[in-house]
Amino acid sequence: MSVDAVLELEWARLRADLVAAGVVVDLGAPGLYAQGPDFVRAYRAFDALLERTFACLDAEVWQFPAVEARPLFERTDYVASFPQLTAALVAFTGGNPEHAELIRVRSDGGRWEELLEPAGVLMSPAACHQLYGVLAGTRLERSRVFDLHGACYRHEPSPDPLRMQAFHQHEYPYVGDAAGALAHRDDAGARMHDLLLGLGLAVDYQVANDPFFGRVGRVLARNQLSAAAKYELTCPVFGADQPPVALGSANYHGTHFATEFSITGPDGEPAHSSCVGLGMERVVLALFAGHGMATADWPDAVRSRLWRGPGERA
Amino acid sequence: MSVDAVLELEWARLRADLVAAGVVVDLGAPGLYAQGPDFVRAYRAFDALLERTFACLDAEVWQFPAVEARPLFERTDYVASFPQLTAALVAFTGGNPEHAELIRVRSDGGRWEELLEPAGVLMSPAACHQLYGVLAGTRLERSRVFDLHGACYRHEPSPDPLRMQAFHQHEYPYVGDAAGALAHRDDAGARMHDLLLGLGLAVDYQVANDPFFGRVGRVLARNQLSAAAKYELTCPVFGADQPPVALGSANYHGTHFATEFSITGPDGEPAHSSCVGLGMERVVLALFAGHGMATADWPDAVRSRLWRGPGERA
Repeated sequence: MSVDAVLELEWARLRADLVAAGVVVDLGAPGLYAQGPDFVRAYRAFDALLERTFACLDAEVWQFPAVEARPLFERTDYVASFPQLTAALVAFTGGNPEHAELIRVRSDGGRWEELLEPAGVLMSPAACHQLYGVLAGTRLERSRVFDLHGACYRHEPSPDPLRMQAFHQHEYPYVGDAAGALAHRDDAGARMHDLLLGLGLAVDYQVANDPFFGRVGRVLARNQLSAAAKYELTCPVFGADQPPVALGSANYHGTHFATEFSITGPDGEPAHSSCVGLGMERVVLALFAGHGMATADWPDAVRSRLWRGPGERA
Repeated sequence: MSVDAVLELEWARLRADLVAAGVVVDLGAPGLYAQGPDFVRAYRAFDALLERTFACLDAEVWQFPAVEARPLFERTDYVASFPQLTAALVAFTGGNPEHAELIRVRSDGGRWEELLEPAGVLMSPAACHQLYGVLAGTRLERSRVFDLHGACYRHEPSPDPLRMQAFHQHEYPYVGDAAGALAHRDDAGARMHDLLLGLGLAVDYQVANDPFFGRVGRVLARNQLSAAAKYELTCPVFGADQPPVALGSANYHGTHFATEFSITGPDGEPAHSSCVGLGMERVVLALFAGHGMATADWPDAVRSRLWRGPGERA
């Protein structure tokens, strides 16, 4: 059996276990799941632990919509690097005759979405994107750290239960000077690594390799690897013989976002930024995959960090 | 000045106050806002109070994605009644040549979204929609109450700061028999009403009037009014002379969802459902509109319910 076929069996097995235990329910498209009570309990406990762990940052807490206005999305250049993950919204803009036509196409079983028009709104692929929109055109008086927990969407329907189309990131971006940005990436990255290790996840901290698109993308990917700007927290969810799964990342952007969004530091020069964050559903699924479908049977050390004991006071 | 013009001035005034105080930041499209630290603090405090208030329901907590798979969306018939609020996702499905074409259209300032294909996924307009997908085809052994807090999207770009395109609902649906569904709607509706009154919001509880679309919609709206199936919690956010704003609703569906999704009760007959829920951002904005932009200056009775005191022990 090929390596890919073995991995696909592993995906199917984990998915079947999760569904059989009611941890998730399939919602009728690859990568869209309802999260049941046990999932939500673990999600919220982990999120609270994360917030306690990073309380020391005294970060500004912001919330952003799950969608981005088109001008802001365009400034991130996301569609140039990741067209295959990009999704835009289309909406109905007609009157009664167009509605009648839509209903007719629909009752014939047709794709009535094709009658809709671009809505000027795109799905947000990363929780921190819109932060740069908020800071656009400003001169910072000091470095700032943010706490962002938001809904993300990437169009990658997959039988891999850890690759959801819709998911949440909890991220801690820093905007300030170069030394501060690198120190934040490395300090918060190490803290995140320790947090995951403490939950019994055999997480590695390694240079990242993003799925940039196409021929140009291979160049971008090589540059990313050689610059060692981004690290990933990877977990061997499907065993040591299979590719590990990225649960999160620690990423130094240099002046990439600040230049595009005209964000300067106290000296008037483009600010530097970095971001440390996790895919929340991936961490929760890694816990279920690693410790079993019944949270009551998870190791005491894990349960005590999540639900009681030292974690509560950390 | 016409009534509409006065209302538009009220919208502009509240929006300007919110932005000037940093409560929200405009993200570049009508109805899309970043929520700043004060907004988030109020949002989370209110959400915690809501959860304490409804802890007595012992509800099952579920989480759903911000998007719905097409087959599930179709079963709700939402697009027939509310085409003007519906949004679908389109995504890139091409290879290198199509990507090159997209980049060319984009660099010419064109609408590259028109090159994308329907993704089989639609924006979820209500937090409880996907619950019916989870329960589809099941026979309930007993009545069940759920706690759902999720992201919603409706395509209604508006200068009214309370009419966001992207927002969150926190809902408590009931599925069981007719008497239980009506009792849940009325009991939880009254409790929700008291909760909002206790926060200094002059909320009314009145028969709802949904914006069904077009000519057929006027019939649906009349039927809804005469059946008195749905009540709304409305607040005179823009003054007693202006139309009040719906902050939430208490809705009895009869067997509408259960019939469509083949959900039956212990007796094998279609189940009855009801749902009581709030638009979270609307409640938070009503608090800022009513009590001012500085949470430190909100009335003590409101602050003590949200941040300390009796609420904490309720």
